Amino acid sequence: MDLFSAIKDRRSCRNFSTEALEDTVIERILDAAVWAPSPLNMQPWQFTIISSEEKKEEVFQEAERCRKWAVEASGWKWLNNYTVDFLKAAPVIVLVVGDSKKTGVDMFQEEGSVGYQLACGAAIQNMLLAAHAMGLGSLWFTFFDKQEIRKIFDIPDDKTPVAMVCIGKTAKDPASVPRKSIKDKVTYC
Amino acid sequence: MDLFSAIKDRRSCRNFSTEALEDTVIERILDAAVWAPSPLNMQPWQFTIISSEEKKEEVFQEAERCRKWAVEASGWKWLNNYTVDFLKAAPVIVLVVGDSKKTGVDMFQEEGSVGYQLACGAAIQNMLLAAHAMGLGSLWFTFFDKQEIRKIFDIPDDKTPVAMVCIGKTAKDPASVPRKSIKDKVTYC
Repeated sequence: MDLFSAIKDRRSCRNFSTEALEDTVIERILDAAVWAPSPLNMQPWQFTIISSEEKKEEVFQEAERCRKWAVEASGWKWLNNYTVDFLKAAPVIVLVVGDSKKTGVDMFQEEGSVGYQLACGAAIQNMLLAAHAMGLGSLWFTFFDKQEIRKIFDIPDDKTPVAMVCIGKTAKDPASVPRKSIKDKVTYC
Repeated sequence: MDLFSAIKDRRSCRNFSTEALEDTVIERILDAAVWAPSPLNMQPWQFTIISSEEKKEEVFQEAERCRKWAVEASGWKWLNNYTVDFLKAAPVIVLVVGDSKKTGVDMFQEEGSVGYQLACGAAIQNMLLAAHAMGLGSLWFTFFDKQEIRKIFDIPDDKTPVAMVCIGKTAKDPASVPRKSIKDKVTYC
């Protein structure tokens, strides 16, 4: 698939078919992920492939807990009707974990280390594009508490659960969401 | 260009031709950027297109200051020989600024807001891929102090200078850097 088509036509999918994916499909998506750039090429990412019903249920429960908590914390009414059932439907959820020790010069800076997480963001974008190019739906999901996810997957405190990427065949075509005009986003100097 | 070729053949370029780029080229790269996903589709990015010699010089001076400081802070000897002259050679530097108010549920969470920066990371990856597909070199650059960049570009404290993306024709083909095997990066559960 052409790069620009992949970028423009990718959508966030929240309706997955439960049909299983071949291991080679996931491997190709991860191979795309690791060709993202990272500070000093430290490749600060790790991937946990979640496909067992048991672990998906644990992720679902944490997302539901987080959603209910967030309804109170945010006052966002739409959250009352937001369901995270796609976490159980998607055949694969890839948990992307960043290593805070593998970051750039910001490890010495006042505002703290985020370079390793940004690199994970780039790797995730590659994953979403690769999934789309392979005819699959995907979702970048962050509705969880990092500390709870550390407990479920036995992740030490110096590593950060950055996001989960749900991947599977789409059960319903995702809607397009519009973008603001570039003109509103750019200044020149 | 095919998506997977773009992902695998993109390189970090540190040798740019000073030849100017057409505005339409930069617009196409920014159009790719904004099709990245973001929490609640809040599109938390702003772009400052730096092409004046004066502003590029200010960026160069800050990067040099940061480099010299980092030599002491890090003990990384390679930094003594690292030059940031590419900041003056590249015809365009795009400063990507994230808006911390346009983030996801993590605005209520203990470990703080990073969703808006991750979205900027995805947008930057789109920019690098788009530049490569258009035959251009690019570099994701973060060797600066955020507070200094805020001063130079008059950016308020609630916005974060996430990275600079240098873009231009390559003066020398960038080297490929290897990646670790996927096997070392993946666990299954």
